[in-house]
Amino acid sequence: MNDFRPNTPLHVDREQLQRDLDALAELTEPGRPWTRRSFTPMFLKGRDYLAQRFAEEGLAVSTDASGNLLGRWVGENADAPVVMTGSHSDTVPSGGRFDGIAGILCGLAAIRALRLSGYQPDNSIELVDFLAEEPSEWGLSCIGSRGMAGALTGDHFAMLGPDGERLDMAIARMGGAPERIAASVRQDIGALVEIHIEQGPVLEAEAVPLGVVTSIAGIARVRLRLEGEAGHAGTVPMAMRADAGMAMARLMLALRDAARVEADRGRGHFTATIGVLKLEPNGANVVPGAAEAIIDIRAENDAAMDDYLAAVPAHATATATAENCRVAAVETLSQTRAVACDARLQAIIANAAEIHGLATKPLSSGAGHDAAFVARIAPAAMIFVPSKGGISHAPEEWTDTESIARAADVLALTLATLDRRPLTQAA
Amino acid sequence: MNDFRPNTPLHVDREQLQRDLDALAELTEPGRPWTRRSFTPMFLKGRDYLAQRFAEEGLAVSTDASGNLLGRWVGENADAPVVMTGSHSDTVPSGGRFDGIAGILCGLAAIRALRLSGYQPDNSIELVDFLAEEPSEWGLSCIGSRGMAGALTGDHFAMLGPDGERLDMAIARMGGAPERIAASVRQDIGALVEIHIEQGPVLEAEAVPLGVVTSIAGIARVRLRLEGEAGHAGTVPMAMRADAGMAMARLMLALRDAARVEADRGRGHFTATIGVLKLEPNGANVVPGAAEAIIDIRAENDAAMDDYLAAVPAHATATATAENCRVAAVETLSQTRAVACDARLQAIIANAAEIHGLATKPLSSGAGHDAAFVARIAPAAMIFVPSKGGISHAPEEWTDTESIARAADVLALTLATLDRRPLTQAA
Repeated sequence: MNDFRPNTPLHVDREQLQRDLDALAELTEPGRPWTRRSFTPMFLKGRDYLAQRFAEEGLAVSTDASGNLLGRWVGENADAPVVMTGSHSDTVPSGGRFDGIAGILCGLAAIRALRLSGYQPDNSIELVDFLAEEPSEWGLSCIGSRGMAGALTGDHFAMLGPDGERLDMAIARMGGAPERIAASVRQDIGALVEIHIEQGPVLEAEAVPLGVVTSIAGIARVRLRLEGEAGHAGTVPMAMRADAGMAMARLMLALRDAARVEADRGRGHFTATIGVLKLEPNGANVVPGAAEAIIDIRAENDAAMDDYLAAVPAHATATATAENCRVAAVETLSQTRAVACDARLQAIIANAAEIHGLATKPLSSGAGHDAAFVARIAPAAMIFVPSKGGISHAPEEWTDTESIARAADVLALTLATLDRRPLTQAA
Repeated sequence: MNDFRPNTPLHVDREQLQRDLDALAELTEPGRPWTRRSFTPMFLKGRDYLAQRFAEEGLAVSTDASGNLLGRWVGENADAPVVMTGSHSDTVPSGGRFDGIAGILCGLAAIRALRLSGYQPDNSIELVDFLAEEPSEWGLSCIGSRGMAGALTGDHFAMLGPDGERLDMAIARMGGAPERIAASVRQDIGALVEIHIEQGPVLEAEAVPLGVVTSIAGIARVRLRLEGEAGHAGTVPMAMRADAGMAMARLMLALRDAARVEADRGRGHFTATIGVLKLEPNGANVVPGAAEAIIDIRAENDAAMDDYLAAVPAHATATATAENCRVAAVETLSQTRAVACDARLQAIIANAAEIHGLATKPLSSGAGHDAAFVARIAPAAMIFVPSKGGISHAPEEWTDTESIARAADVLALTLATLDRRPLTQAA
């Protein structure tokens, strides 16, 4: 053990952090900022950049069975539980420059600052880019962290994406080894600390530089398919139609109204969103014969989630019937429970922030995160940085580099603290 | 003039007609029957087949400036007005095997029967495959017949399709010469007779083998774009959203309800349909920041069309405002007036049917057709054959070969009648 004192308030290199943020922002689909969708060639370009930067910081770079990119700073005691940090490098379509990537680059900046200070880890510190945190074209999110935590099953593997590609084949294409995922559930993680933008308006509104996340909302995604009767737009009389598009329009409004009621009930944060929708065959002069949508539901309270999910089929049946259509599918694609963050980690983070003179606010996360899956196998916690206007998943998403760098300062101290005094020993 | 007597009830070759129907049905996008979209490689495969068949029947094959495929049976008097027949070979996505192609193959069968009978035309008989009758990815329908009739303008040429390709470039890619379209408006057409499936339930329900079309509904297509505020599905509270998808859902229902009211007013056939819809960015965990749709409106009565179109902006504003969104576009992409079919042609067709012992029913067409554009420059009429269950623009679309062949029998006699006694002389 060297003479590093965990209480030293290291500061990460702001300019290097800015260069990395700018470099990743440039790796976007042309003409569609900022888009780096998982499983695409552009995503792999982003990973190439990260892998190179990881290697430059002396990290041992690898891809695990689930397709997560890992960079390991091997410590004296190579077999001890690792201290993990990181987030994800993929984006939603036309998303922002910070969601996900800020967490990876904070980890990189923190490790760099620790190395420059002469720090030598007792155990190992691992930096991770989780595969496909955002909902992918396969209809699933948090694929890499699910895999790491043993929550990726054969049903998931068989999900089909663009061109009918199976998810397991897509994971293999990213460098993963799907056949080894089940046997590769990590049991060596001592703690995970993930930095992420808040994606909400609270920290900015209250002028608090850092949020310490207390819980992560449960998320469900449900596929809705209504079917009617396709026909010629000019010849099928209005009164004789079974227009699946109209049935879906009614269902969208009914599900939204139900979500408003739940959100007002006082059972904590609750949202329901239909962001994906298609008509079939999607021709201007064809009465839609089918309509499909995905509804995304978030609940801090598991009972609220269960109540809402239980009511979805009745809403679908009522609205389909009103339009002479039928319900072809109400299929739960994925569902997670709300997750509490580790209280000991929350305290260590708050203490590190205090050493840096930074105020913190405890808050719940309406967004899902890879940390929620890792929490199944290890103590996990998150640090939030403010989002301008609360906007995310849009090109206007913005967080100042200094705000991100402060979180990285706190992370460096937190990683060193956890390395010197693992939770298992502190308990 | 040879000794052909127009009153001879020729019969077309049923087996050859069946072979041609089957051959075209096989030219579909794999796994998506039946799809032969205009401007695609599959569409050109269909055209290659047709051009070969045209040539086998001794027709002089060419592509005109608007990209229409023509097969001309040159008569004794090569400069006299031509008798034209035909329809279109493109389909909607996941459409049927008869819409359009039946009219071309009836023309081919009729010409074949006339040739086998030893008939020699006085004037010329022309068989046409109009380019892109169905709404194309450029948002426009009846592209070839518009061009033939001088109804394709610079504004249309600049419309953008997939990959940002301009419509004029796409027409050129189909063998057309867009720079010559304006100067190539046809002034030599003596008459057009188009055979088409009814795409409605009337003929089947009344057990009448042939419909003689009296008028073709006017059609308008309007692009609707509503914009709100994109955001994270998990963090933007329900009460603070400007969800463009919900605004569009409201607008769809409002426009449909208004169409029901108009259809019940007794001003003739009226429909309004939203068959094309997309959310932006179309990600499962993003509140939609924008929603676009195309509404297709059909009216036998021009005043009904005008009244409805005038009310669309108010519907858009009311529904967008109700969802905290705004109207970004209410743009009329195209509009045609209702068209009356030529009364003399209707009488000649009915007479030819009577010679064949076939009953006919006069009826209005809710669907648009190329004949409506050609009617701007020449007398035009249509023959309808029954559609099983009234279904079209769907894989279940069906008409028996014998039903189609009967129309071709009547067409052969009609073409010969018009060739021997042009309307200009009969008047």
